[in-house]
Amino acid sequence: MGDPAGIGPEIIAASWSDPATHLLVRRFVIGDVNVMQAAIDLFHLPTIVRRINHLSEVSDNPQILSVWPIQTDAAAAPRGQVSSTAGAAAAEALRIATRMALAREIDAIVTAPLNKASLNAAGIDLPGHTELLAEQCGVQNVAMMLHVPHGPTVVGEVGISVVHVTLHTALRRVFAELTSQAIIDKCQLATQFTQAMLAAREIKRFPRIGVAALNPHGGENGLFGDEEIQIIQPAVLQARKMGLPVCGPLPCDTLMHHAAAGEFDTVVAMYHDQGHIALKLLGLQRAVNITLGLPIIRTSVAHGTAFDIAWKGLAKHESLLEAIRTAAYLAVHRQLLATG
Amino acid sequence: MGDPAGIGPEIIAASWSDPATHLLVRRFVIGDVNVMQAAIDLFHLPTIVRRINHLSEVSDNPQILSVWPIQTDAAAAPRGQVSSTAGAAAAEALRIATRMALAREIDAIVTAPLNKASLNAAGIDLPGHTELLAEQCGVQNVAMMLHVPHGPTVVGEVGISVVHVTLHTALRRVFAELTSQAIIDKCQLATQFTQAMLAAREIKRFPRIGVAALNPHGGENGLFGDEEIQIIQPAVLQARKMGLPVCGPLPCDTLMHHAAAGEFDTVVAMYHDQGHIALKLLGLQRAVNITLGLPIIRTSVAHGTAFDIAWKGLAKHESLLEAIRTAAYLAVHRQLLATG
Repeated sequence: MGDPAGIGPEIIAASWSDPATHLLVRRFVIGDVNVMQAAIDLFHLPTIVRRINHLSEVSDNPQILSVWPIQTDAAAAPRGQVSSTAGAAAAEALRIATRMALAREIDAIVTAPLNKASLNAAGIDLPGHTELLAEQCGVQNVAMMLHVPHGPTVVGEVGISVVHVTLHTALRRVFAELTSQAIIDKCQLATQFTQAMLAAREIKRFPRIGVAALNPHGGENGLFGDEEIQIIQPAVLQARKMGLPVCGPLPCDTLMHHAAAGEFDTVVAMYHDQGHIALKLLGLQRAVNITLGLPIIRTSVAHGTAFDIAWKGLAKHESLLEAIRTAAYLAVHRQLLATG
Repeated sequence: MGDPAGIGPEIIAASWSDPATHLLVRRFVIGDVNVMQAAIDLFHLPTIVRRINHLSEVSDNPQILSVWPIQTDAAAAPRGQVSSTAGAAAAEALRIATRMALAREIDAIVTAPLNKASLNAAGIDLPGHTELLAEQCGVQNVAMMLHVPHGPTVVGEVGISVVHVTLHTALRRVFAELTSQAIIDKCQLATQFTQAMLAAREIKRFPRIGVAALNPHGGENGLFGDEEIQIIQPAVLQARKMGLPVCGPLPCDTLMHHAAAGEFDTVVAMYHDQGHIALKLLGLQRAVNITLGLPIIRTSVAHGTAFDIAWKGLAKHESLLEAIRTAAYLAVHRQLLATG
């Protein structure tokens, strides 16, 4: 359900009306029955909200929205505001979902947005979903991927994806965090993900993965920085020796252009803005956030709680639908992922 | 003419057939008569190539391509290859053009691409046009701007433009080069440029200029770096005190998205890839490169010599047409620019 004060409940409610999604997956909400009923009422939808106590009760009927309840009184959280109640509810729902996914009771988790300040107010000192999930799954080597599916701005059959070698860190600290091993690890995760996406579309070819340079013009042979020569090039060579279909380092501005044109499926970016500038331009509304390296499958919307427009029925639910579709594709081909 | 071995001559030849451009400007080529004749012949165009010795001889007739000759035998340069002959020809043409522009014999220079390796082979140790022009004009505080005009991917009436505070430097060196004064200078150049573009379109409103943050999420109040707090925010406040219509620092990924949606005319980017990733995605074929801070008006195509496709008639000339249009707009409103 994500943060009940944000746009999560209403985009879930709106997404329930998409008929194609019901053919693809059987889904239910882990959250609060009253909050979800309020979200359904916001759109005057005929959908029936039903509390369940066992997974066998999850309904196949698209008219029924099954809710696995949480203990926190999420309906008490003030809408469009930071609160410990909202943060606690979002964290509880995520914990239940992770436990179910680790036990293989469910195939995948799709998350609505949560708010970092609300999480912190609830006593959880982690920046977001990704870190919460890594902690709960007991893994450290996770990577955040942004994915924009095939569409008007993205030519590639399996869309365009970016995995980040460094992420939520000062640009100045990127130089310390950027190691050949970190790049190789991300090349591996990028390959597994792209293989699964190609398999889901029944496309029989190797993944095409481009590794971004760090410096302008790829460093111009050392003139504009030597990280390409010292760190990235050796990592790419080693990854290729391991059989990974990667090439680079390539100047990031031209690499993103070629990827959008369908010449690469996935880009390994060196830092946050390289990937985020490109993918937010190519499709902020349709972008999906995927955590790679977990023993479970987890996708998410790529936007935040949007408190300014929450509970007004204005939020777009395209990103949530794409997140559900992507989770379904990955779940079918999970043997290709490092999900254990 | 740019580098005679590259795609410059053929995109000039192809652009001569655009009737609208002839209504907007009177233009001539500074280059080699034989090279330009060969480029016209490549497309079997009826255009007549005519050598001129005085500016009064520049023809108004769209069927005539007037050439102010250079001394270098550019036709001897091997096509699609690095050579000192090609580098010397490109540099000579640029020197003549700059001299004419400084003397106000011409209103603006539009440059076709040149090749850095050919320039170096000709004994010129500068990275490109921008640095050659700055040297010849005797100025140091220049800025490179990328501009994509209004079109399918860019909503804004005056397109989207990015000026770079740091440019051809290692990412690691950005931290030393990034000063509040450099940001203020670029805010001023960005404002002048945007005012001229608005005036050219007869749009009566203030420019909208967004200043990018350096770190992810704009530094998250110091959690991911303090350059926003120490350098960028004070620069924006000072620029606003000076009356410049700037706001920021804003996280660059969302800023670029809002700018593409027409909410900002111009972005002040902190380093090369921030601006280049966005503008190459929004319109590599239509992007224009503009040098701000010169005492003359100079625009250019935003692509390179493309030796791999040169002299095959495959190169697109959209960027050159946009560069000509932009130069014309700026020339009409040059009193708004710091061109002396």
